[in-house]
Amino acid sequence: MRFLSSPTRRQFIVGVSGAVLSSSASGELIASGSVKYDAPEDPRKVPGRPANEDGGYGTRSQFAKGKRVGGASWALTPVQHLYGTITPSSLHYCIHHAGIPTIDPQRHRLFIHGMVERERELGMEEILRLPRITRTHFLECAGNTFFEWKGPRYNDVQMTHGQMSNTEWTGVPLKFVLQQVGVDPRASWVIAEGADAAVMSRSIPLAKCMDDAILAFGQNGEELRPEQGFPLRLLLPGFEGNTSIKWLRRLQVTDQPHMTRMETRGYSDLLPSGKARQFSFVMEAKSVITFPSAPMILDGPGFYEITGLAWSGNGRITRVQVSADAGKHWVDAPLEGPVLPKAFVRFRVPWQWDGTDAVLQSRCIDETGYVQPTRGQLIEARGLNTTDHFNAIQQWAVNRTGEVSNVQV
Amino acid sequence: MRFLSSPTRRQFIVGVSGAVLSSSASGELIASGSVKYDAPEDPRKVPGRPANEDGGYGTRSQFAKGKRVGGASWALTPVQHLYGTITPSSLHYCIHHAGIPTIDPQRHRLFIHGMVERERELGMEEILRLPRITRTHFLECAGNTFFEWKGPRYNDVQMTHGQMSNTEWTGVPLKFVLQQVGVDPRASWVIAEGADAAVMSRSIPLAKCMDDAILAFGQNGEELRPEQGFPLRLLLPGFEGNTSIKWLRRLQVTDQPHMTRMETRGYSDLLPSGKARQFSFVMEAKSVITFPSAPMILDGPGFYEITGLAWSGNGRITRVQVSADAGKHWVDAPLEGPVLPKAFVRFRVPWQWDGTDAVLQSRCIDETGYVQPTRGQLIEARGLNTTDHFNAIQQWAVNRTGEVSNVQV
Repeated sequence: MRFLSSPTRRQFIVGVSGAVLSSSASGELIASGSVKYDAPEDPRKVPGRPANEDGGYGTRSQFAKGKRVGGASWALTPVQHLYGTITPSSLHYCIHHAGIPTIDPQRHRLFIHGMVERERELGMEEILRLPRITRTHFLECAGNTFFEWKGPRYNDVQMTHGQMSNTEWTGVPLKFVLQQVGVDPRASWVIAEGADAAVMSRSIPLAKCMDDAILAFGQNGEELRPEQGFPLRLLLPGFEGNTSIKWLRRLQVTDQPHMTRMETRGYSDLLPSGKARQFSFVMEAKSVITFPSAPMILDGPGFYEITGLAWSGNGRITRVQVSADAGKHWVDAPLEGPVLPKAFVRFRVPWQWDGTDAVLQSRCIDETGYVQPTRGQLIEARGLNTTDHFNAIQQWAVNRTGEVSNVQV
Repeated sequence: MRFLSSPTRRQFIVGVSGAVLSSSASGELIASGSVKYDAPEDPRKVPGRPANEDGGYGTRSQFAKGKRVGGASWALTPVQHLYGTITPSSLHYCIHHAGIPTIDPQRHRLFIHGMVERERELGMEEILRLPRITRTHFLECAGNTFFEWKGPRYNDVQMTHGQMSNTEWTGVPLKFVLQQVGVDPRASWVIAEGADAAVMSRSIPLAKCMDDAILAFGQNGEELRPEQGFPLRLLLPGFEGNTSIKWLRRLQVTDQPHMTRMETRGYSDLLPSGKARQFSFVMEAKSVITFPSAPMILDGPGFYEITGLAWSGNGRITRVQVSADAGKHWVDAPLEGPVLPKAFVRFRVPWQWDGTDAVLQSRCIDETGYVQPTRGQLIEARGLNTTDHFNAIQQWAVNRTGEVSNVQV
């Protein structure tokens, strides 16, 4: 097998004769949120349905394939079905600790207090009057891919990598609001608290709040979804998802972290030395091939475009390399622009599969020079007592029958 | 009144005490596509709902405000409710000529024939195997804002400017497919035809097909919506929307345009001379202020952020200027990056309203140096017999009671 700078005519003519079969558990046809219609034999002979029958808010195709899988407290993005870099809000991953609250925006308040000159209580109508910014950023759960610490466990990319999404956020720079209330120069932390039944709360370094933090109320062009924090969430670009407190009701400026339940019981990383990494906020550079990925089945040798996503909580991705022989040889994968900081970037590389065994990997580098590690390198640094921040190179094997499987080693 | 480089502390403290009231006809609360829940008095005291109850495809807040307005054959984007630059697919404008067909992707075929070396019939599984690109582009109907040719008619920005949207598209470069089938060097046009009951068809210059045209099947991270052409549409960045043929079933390479119904009966521009502009494909640079816009009502003097959208079918927007005194004085409005070619860019400028009469305008310039015209300049060039390609500066008046109205002159 070999990589192609671009497919040749012969490969196109030959290669496209086969079809890709997906045996993913989440690949069956579903019709959630949409009406089912019979598809006529010839759609040119049957008048179609009207333009605005969906109450002013359109629905997707009954043939659309991607859906989230999840349970009471979690829902995972079908990364294998994503196109481009934007995750539809309906497919954004979601994790919560006591359910998704229903909040009337007219009654919601944000309290800003503690080490400030002027405490404030802001309603949503006041917040919506303030100067705004729009930024595209990924969110990733600290625990994304945590199953893989101890070797391959789930043979499904949605299970291994589905706790991540990438959307366009709109809101007020938190820095602007903090400047208005006047922060005590001795302050160094901000306690952010949600209005959900878990009263989810985290201690955030003041420096992050004064950098690129956003009080977000818009996502992908419309209001935040309830599961994403409607009417207001904190958005901390590049930080582990749980710190971007949803249903935000309180910001307390302090001079020390509060050691909340979610930063003592969880969201810390026990090292082999017996010490723990705490406040390990940043999601370091990571990438994954989403096609081909487990548990797809390739329909015979021929041309395929390998594609996947890369991202870094420390800035821009500068390079992605792909290997089809378990890391012996690597090629650079072109990145789809614009390459934005702390956002998904999609890579694509043409591949001619000759039908023999292959092991596919992607490896990314960010603008700080950080190189995505192997699982071995990661375990060497952090041991096996930790569950979060697993960002190692993922390995997918393709066998001679075209079956793709998780062979993380 | 005056523009502010950035709001001062005093303006923040004073300015946010009031609230913005929207009296837009499309501003009431709706719950389309979502379940309604009671909002508890204190959401911290009531367990929330589960994460994945929506069949794997989440729904929006029952308090979300934007919805499309429309009829049997059209639906308009609520531009006044958009955040950022991405239009949610559920709010994308839609115009069709014989209904939205339901097409089974397994049975759909694209025929490529005419002046080519090798005619081809491609199924969707074959098309999905080809090399892809992802690009963010606006679509705008040739007739967007056409009411305004003869002066202000609708006092609602959704009615005047709702035939436009901006999304992330994924598909195969048409150039790649045409290179594979081998285009006759004497060819100069491509006839694109849809599979809908209107058999919508247009003649497209071959040069455009070999430039940035896309065979699109992905939009905003998921499959195209049925109303946007599922399973396949032509996407011609910067061209009037109708040329981006939906439900694409046929591409015929020829050496002349076909003079289809939609390029003789319509989509041509009758000039004062009696001659008509035909194949006037490109949507030239245009901008509009979406807040404040008719028929909003401002709640008294104070700080407001003026915001809107600008776009050009000829490339990147390089500058947007805003006036609050009917064009006597202009200030530059910062553009939210990344500024992409043939895509919406959002501008925002802080404004301290002193409570007196104001007339708000935005004016954009693109990278070709083209300046968005006034209505007078546009009429001078094109007369009043034409309906399409109205891209003049829009004017919104704010009176002393805060009422915003359409005063296009």
